[in-house]
Amino acid sequence: MSTVRVAVVGLGMIGGSVARRFAPHHDVRVWDSDPATRTAAEHAGLQVTDDLAGTDVVVVATPLEAMPTVLSGLSTSDGPLVTDVGSVKVPVLAAARAAGLAGRYVGGHPMAGVERSGFAAADPELLAGAVWVLTLEDDTDLAGWLAVAELVTGAGGRVLPTTAAAHDEAQARISGLPHLLSTALAVAGGIGGPLAGALAAGSFRDGTRVAGTRPELVAALCDGNRVALARVLAETLAELASARDALAGDGSVLPLATAGHQARRAWAEAAPAVGVTLDRDTPNLRDDLLALGAAGGSLDAVTSQQLHGRRPDVSGSPGQGRLRP
Amino acid sequence: MSTVRVAVVGLGMIGGSVARRFAPHHDVRVWDSDPATRTAAEHAGLQVTDDLAGTDVVVVATPLEAMPTVLSGLSTSDGPLVTDVGSVKVPVLAAARAAGLAGRYVGGHPMAGVERSGFAAADPELLAGAVWVLTLEDDTDLAGWLAVAELVTGAGGRVLPTTAAAHDEAQARISGLPHLLSTALAVAGGIGGPLAGALAAGSFRDGTRVAGTRPELVAALCDGNRVALARVLAETLAELASARDALAGDGSVLPLATAGHQARRAWAEAAPAVGVTLDRDTPNLRDDLLALGAAGGSLDAVTSQQLHGRRPDVSGSPGQGRLRP
Repeated sequence: MSTVRVAVVGLGMIGGSVARRFAPHHDVRVWDSDPATRTAAEHAGLQVTDDLAGTDVVVVATPLEAMPTVLSGLSTSDGPLVTDVGSVKVPVLAAARAAGLAGRYVGGHPMAGVERSGFAAADPELLAGAVWVLTLEDDTDLAGWLAVAELVTGAGGRVLPTTAAAHDEAQARISGLPHLLSTALAVAGGIGGPLAGALAAGSFRDGTRVAGTRPELVAALCDGNRVALARVLAETLAELASARDALAGDGSVLPLATAGHQARRAWAEAAPAVGVTLDRDTPNLRDDLLALGAAGGSLDAVTSQQLHGRRPDVSGSPGQGRLRP
Repeated sequence: MSTVRVAVVGLGMIGGSVARRFAPHHDVRVWDSDPATRTAAEHAGLQVTDDLAGTDVVVVATPLEAMPTVLSGLSTSDGPLVTDVGSVKVPVLAAARAAGLAGRYVGGHPMAGVERSGFAAADPELLAGAVWVLTLEDDTDLAGWLAVAELVTGAGGRVLPTTAAAHDEAQARISGLPHLLSTALAVAGGIGGPLAGALAAGSFRDGTRVAGTRPELVAALCDGNRVALARVLAETLAELASARDALAGDGSVLPLATAGHQARRAWAEAAPAVGVTLDRDTPNLRDDLLALGAAGGSLDAVTSQQLHGRRPDVSGSPGQGRLRP
């Protein structure tokens, strides 16, 4: 692919990793509001400037709360494509639309670790082979979306197309909820004091591992996705309240245990991947892309003619069909 | 220590492991209601008989639901000491008292894995260094308790003294609750379908690991401890409902995340162990033993003069004080 003029605004762990991943292949400029971070970026060989003129793609990688301000600053009439790396997509999409960027905004979320932070933790290898969500809405310019997808796949990312709403719902289920349940379990164990601590073993250790994440990061990822997470959490509370009622009465938790066992197996027993090729000029491309993402599939390569990817082969799978990272 | 005449009734994974662990050092007889299991035990060199005459200690290792029947069969006037290996203690204590065994019943729970089952999975090494709860109630005969403790420590177990009620409460917090939360998380992820499955990573994987346990085992350990678990689960539901309210309103999950983070760190950062020696003839021995267990401590050796163990040194510890297995 040809060289793209990329600007990365915000050089935390993810933004720094993105800048360093793109830098060998593209014309990359970076900026951060923190002078010490800018100095560190310069020492890492990055080109630091706040001049975005002539940029093809701006990657907004600031903390979520700063994104609306950055996005509103990008609302020129013939500006660049805008993407971001935030862990929640509906609020950023709303901010982009409010800034008049609807058509040329492509929400992004590289699925990489959140346990460390800061430019010092940036590592381009973190993004190698990572699933990288790119959101596609009715008002997203498809050519712009494909340009961002080409940039990401060219850097080794696996682009999963979905909507901001579907992303946030899934994210609530597989990231927000596990963090909340883990912290609640750690609290319940702590109330049990040293006796409970002495008896605790594998199930408690595994269940509380992500409670070791910095509380500010947990709060950011949960609070940032509050609408979807509140809904998913309410659903899970109802499930657990049924279990409590069964225990308090004469019932059994067997139905819940069975459903959980089946869901876990379906997830863990990944379906084999099958190759997918989409014609770039097909009139149904937007729908085909969203169907690919809904099936858990992703794109590995975007060329000027075709899109190449893979999705789980659910036809022969015992599980729900999942393309393992 | 001298040879003890031990009978093990029930040769599942734990009962089989106990029999094989004691067999090299003691006069061990075993029994199981299943003929094929009896044959397997004979092939493993164990002495199979249903004659318990002259036994010093009977270890009841049947499934929980069979224990009341076995216990009532042991209610002769001058019978042996009776212990068990069930994962819940209050119901077994009640059955022992109902069978007139109160004084000579010592509830036991070796903290060993539950993921496998059957005599074929029995492994004496499973119990090497394991924390082994022995319950001590107001009506437990202390000399009998010490005899069982000597047997267990002589086989390499670490005896943690506590009451049946305190055990079941702790067990609800560190085993029943993690299993229920894990299954609920797996269900919530499954509802998200292939998209959620494709985005799921470490936090979901760790949080759902024990949902892979056989549902019948999860149901047995949860249903068997229904009173304590329903109470602990209700407490956790209230905690999570607060988080949901914070998300649905304008609040933050930061307080929960902070409390969970602190509890997890306190647990994971084990206090160093300090040695403990108790005089066997001290008039406060019963209270001293329960205090040791409440502090997360345990006994490594029981002799005719003294009891040697260890407990967390909470004086210099940043955490809640925990003696790591």
